[in-house]
Amino acid sequence: MTDTPHDLVDFGNGQPSSSLLPLDAIRTAADHCLSRGDAALLQYGDDQGDVDFRESLARFLTHRYATPVSAAHLMISAGVSQALDLVCTRFTRPGDTIFVEEPTYFLALEVFRDHGLQVVGIPIDHDGIRLDALQDALTRHCPALLYTIPSFQNPSGTTMSAARREQLAAVSRAHDLLIVADEVYQLLDFGTAPPPPLAAYIRDARVLSLGSFSKICAPGLRLGWIQGAAPLLDHLMQSGVVHSGGGLNPFASGVVRSLLDLGLADAGLDVLLRVYAERSAVLCRALRDALPMATFVEPRGGYFVWVQLPSTISASRLLPTAVAEGVSYRAGALFSSVNGFARSLRLSFAHYDEAALVLGVQRLARAIARYSTNAE
Amino acid sequence: MTDTPHDLVDFGNGQPSSSLLPLDAIRTAADHCLSRGDAALLQYGDDQGDVDFRESLARFLTHRYATPVSAAHLMISAGVSQALDLVCTRFTRPGDTIFVEEPTYFLALEVFRDHGLQVVGIPIDHDGIRLDALQDALTRHCPALLYTIPSFQNPSGTTMSAARREQLAAVSRAHDLLIVADEVYQLLDFGTAPPPPLAAYIRDARVLSLGSFSKICAPGLRLGWIQGAAPLLDHLMQSGVVHSGGGLNPFASGVVRSLLDLGLADAGLDVLLRVYAERSAVLCRALRDALPMATFVEPRGGYFVWVQLPSTISASRLLPTAVAEGVSYRAGALFSSVNGFARSLRLSFAHYDEAALVLGVQRLARAIARYSTNAE
Repeated sequence: MTDTPHDLVDFGNGQPSSSLLPLDAIRTAADHCLSRGDAALLQYGDDQGDVDFRESLARFLTHRYATPVSAAHLMISAGVSQALDLVCTRFTRPGDTIFVEEPTYFLALEVFRDHGLQVVGIPIDHDGIRLDALQDALTRHCPALLYTIPSFQNPSGTTMSAARREQLAAVSRAHDLLIVADEVYQLLDFGTAPPPPLAAYIRDARVLSLGSFSKICAPGLRLGWIQGAAPLLDHLMQSGVVHSGGGLNPFASGVVRSLLDLGLADAGLDVLLRVYAERSAVLCRALRDALPMATFVEPRGGYFVWVQLPSTISASRLLPTAVAEGVSYRAGALFSSVNGFARSLRLSFAHYDEAALVLGVQRLARAIARYSTNAE
Repeated sequence: MTDTPHDLVDFGNGQPSSSLLPLDAIRTAADHCLSRGDAALLQYGDDQGDVDFRESLARFLTHRYATPVSAAHLMISAGVSQALDLVCTRFTRPGDTIFVEEPTYFLALEVFRDHGLQVVGIPIDHDGIRLDALQDALTRHCPALLYTIPSFQNPSGTTMSAARREQLAAVSRAHDLLIVADEVYQLLDFGTAPPPPLAAYIRDARVLSLGSFSKICAPGLRLGWIQGAAPLLDHLMQSGVVHSGGGLNPFASGVVRSLLDLGLADAGLDVLLRVYAERSAVLCRALRDALPMATFVEPRGGYFVWVQLPSTISASRLLPTAVAEGVSYRAGALFSSVNGFARSLRLSFAHYDEAALVLGVQRLARAIARYSTNAE
């Protein structure tokens, strides 16, 4: 990485560094599972996903979530994006209204658009989705589902409090509201675990919890899970794609089953937690040093810092200047269903090493200085 | 396999035998690709699929299709079921009419149902889809697409003639009709290649060709491709699922790239062709011996024999008797969009060895004898 505009530091990139991808562990796991003479991972698999893999996954999640997880309540997916698409196919009809958090994960909004859904944003505060706003919206709408990212939210980094989770589950029960919880960051805490995942409420509320190996192992596996009560999973499994293609990713399931059973998934996640905690700290320190006018809450987990610029600055309008300086990010408006968050930007610390993070912030500071000078 | 009703011979099973799954070859390929120190297969991949894999696949298809295939016209999918779902999401709206062949693949009908589509069946004859019926239907409907299985059709085993393919492409041009060709059996001929795939028409008609490694290698990989002109592929790639999740199966793509480059995919397919040709011949001989009242066209490729029973027999009503005798199949009505084909049944020869195929036919003959006796 040299300090030239050609080596863009793209804080918008939500991918892990290639150096963090567990190539050797996956090689060990692949050899382990392909050596035992069982070709099941090459066959059309069970619609719900291989039961041995689901049991290994249930053990892993029971330990990591610190809350009991049963294999019977897990359906294997090809990642959260695929799972979200399947949930929309099976639980919504075009024209339906759904609720999302405001702000929310911008690419989930594209999945909802593909399904012809009307999106209503519910604001969040520092404890997660605002229940007063949700209750109010429920007087005007009958949503097919609510999409939430409870822990280390994308983009805001916010974690829903335990009390708020309880209240949300109560709202789900009272209104028969389907909660679709995107819990991909749940296990990515930097030392202080968030409250138990919404997956802990699948028995007493209408909750589907979407998890994935993308953020805790490797995105290219395209492997995740949907945790829910049997009737909800059954409804998902009655899909044409599942009936036709069988299990959604038997081969990657077999490899990751070995990864789990050999303890390599746990070891790999522990490495990621240490690296991301360090990167987050470095990015936040650099922001405080170089951008004293910016405000943010230092993340306690996940992938992102959600930065508020002074009200004189538009994150969207700043972007070309930033790119010219060799740095990029995701402007806040992307994450809004009502074109809000004009002065916010999302910075990911997952993709770059510490030197690149510092360099990116220096470039961002130069871009803001140039932008502010030009605006005067 | 002992001759007891407990060991059901399920001719309805469209899976390859586990003994035919290339466990050792996949192990070699996985070790090859995971040993070269390139973690790209573990990363969120290119939306279109890894370019090196697409180039290896293009070489394989150019050779096997005996018609030129370009990597630029390939998008990697997670199998035909996933691809068909994506095509429906991006090219149809609920309430749209689509055309299918009558009969057609019954589980594709479930995918179409999930998308709220109105299905109109177009009859086939021994040369494939009937163009007169298609032209007639086009005077009454404006379909979002036509779904066809041109070679060794599921369930009928029929292969569309070269002339019919030309005519279908002309209809596509004249009516701007999107043809979605499910070409999973194209490479499974028993010595006489079918006409070139509909993929050969992607430049001069509105054609998307869906291919897969499920039938030529291993279903559990959940790996396939969509071949089409750039504007059609671009429209597919502008999907929320692809934007969010990236390439649809980077890990399996990396493994199968090695399988292709090491010549193991070609070698494995050659084994399958020999085995399936033998199994098809054995099944047909057994049918002629034990069920002289049944008629069928001996398949020249694919997975299936489509058997017509005498008009006094309903395949659906026969099924419980058959299962009691220890044999099962798919009744013809499943494959119809108008509840037709009452006396047809689809038998797959892919899953069982030759002894089991003969045993299954003997049981089927006993079931028909019992059914006919009871009906008298």
